[in-house]
Amino acid sequence: MKVLIVHAHPEANSFTAALRDQAIETLQAQGHEVQVSDLYEMNWNPVASAEDFSPRQNPEYLVYALEQRLGVKHHSIAADIQQELDKLLWADLLILNFPIFWFSAPAMLKGWIDRVLVSGICYGGKRFYDHGGLAGKKALVTVTLGGREHMFGEGAIHGPFEDMLRPILRGTLAYVGFEVLQPFVAWHVPYISDQARQDFLRSYQQRLEHIADDLPLEYVKLSQFDEALYPLANNA
Amino acid sequence: MKVLIVHAHPEANSFTAALRDQAIETLQAQGHEVQVSDLYEMNWNPVASAEDFSPRQNPEYLVYALEQRLGVKHHSIAADIQQELDKLLWADLLILNFPIFWFSAPAMLKGWIDRVLVSGICYGGKRFYDHGGLAGKKALVTVTLGGREHMFGEGAIHGPFEDMLRPILRGTLAYVGFEVLQPFVAWHVPYISDQARQDFLRSYQQRLEHIADDLPLEYVKLSQFDEALYPLANNA
Repeated sequence: MKVLIVHAHPEANSFTAALRDQAIETLQAQGHEVQVSDLYEMNWNPVASAEDFSPRQNPEYLVYALEQRLGVKHHSIAADIQQELDKLLWADLLILNFPIFWFSAPAMLKGWIDRVLVSGICYGGKRFYDHGGLAGKKALVTVTLGGREHMFGEGAIHGPFEDMLRPILRGTLAYVGFEVLQPFVAWHVPYISDQARQDFLRSYQQRLEHIADDLPLEYVKLSQFDEALYPLANNA
Repeated sequence: MKVLIVHAHPEANSFTAALRDQAIETLQAQGHEVQVSDLYEMNWNPVASAEDFSPRQNPEYLVYALEQRLGVKHHSIAADIQQELDKLLWADLLILNFPIFWFSAPAMLKGWIDRVLVSGICYGGKRFYDHGGLAGKKALVTVTLGGREHMFGEGAIHGPFEDMLRPILRGTLAYVGFEVLQPFVAWHVPYISDQARQDFLRSYQQRLEHIADDLPLEYVKLSQFDEALYPLANNA
């Protein structure tokens, strides 16, 4: 497999970075090819703006998704976006590797999503969910957080963890067609022992050694909806 | 009331900006004081990094939330963060005004959340949800999106809209103690007539004229959980 790891953490020596390095080592040892986008190290620009397109189709009024569509078609999209898009299209497996900030991704990574998952290639028209532009690829979300595992789940104080990650897992990754694997979560990281951190790394290694056999999460299929995207009566 | 509108849209003349202007006009006409943070116009820096703290408590290893806590205490947090934090603490009502990007906020606004909702003031220790640092304030999320209303809800293709906004509504705003009002949503904006846009503006105006009477959404309360944040048996 070809694997793209997109990593975003403001501390170069974080445990999140150790998970990134564990993934590189384990996946390469299995014979996979790995590329890494380390967004803080790259000084990635997370701000979607008119400057992403030159020339613009409509210099008077910015419709970001429309400029994306035309920009990728005419190769006039910003070079930093094109470079990430090329890596994304190259990859069979995308790993998003980040610390949870406010029950979602740091702005740095959100801006990679905003700018790189371009309309016209990743989605557009009826190409979304199982018909998404990146169908056939897999995605794994690997996160660290301060919270404890018992704070998540039905009836727990923050509710189910996957509900909090829904905009990323379903609204982003599944939306563009990825088969989305169960997230890998390292809980309570700032407060645990070195041994507990080592245990997370070993557990991640084992997970990655068998990642090809992982079953994806289940989401909606377009065939369950009519042309106007109303649910079909026999939607099961 | 004192109202802070945080606005983030890459097009200065967007319909989202028209909603911002409608809010300013309506709220001022009602005698409220209004401040606006227009993040694109301000060229806001959305990237949480070590540079937000000078001097740093620990120059060797960045724990962002810890540096926030000490930075606000010792007035050594970056000036752009302190300025936004002052506005936030001044406000009785916070309005987040943005276009939906990937079922959540643009990175520009996510980075305002990451940097401005500082540990030690907005949350920390057992100060979260109804005990959050901003308890007593209200928050309204006003959004535009391309999707149609029938694509959201139980059984709809994207599921309930509030589930997609959960990390912001519950995981961010309710978490720091805001009373979170029902979001105002303008559907299908890029595709509708001028008349339909005017209708959304009128409807927003009417909503804002009675915003003080709005009942907040219901979330968990800390009293439903024990000291270790396990749910109490009689959690109702």
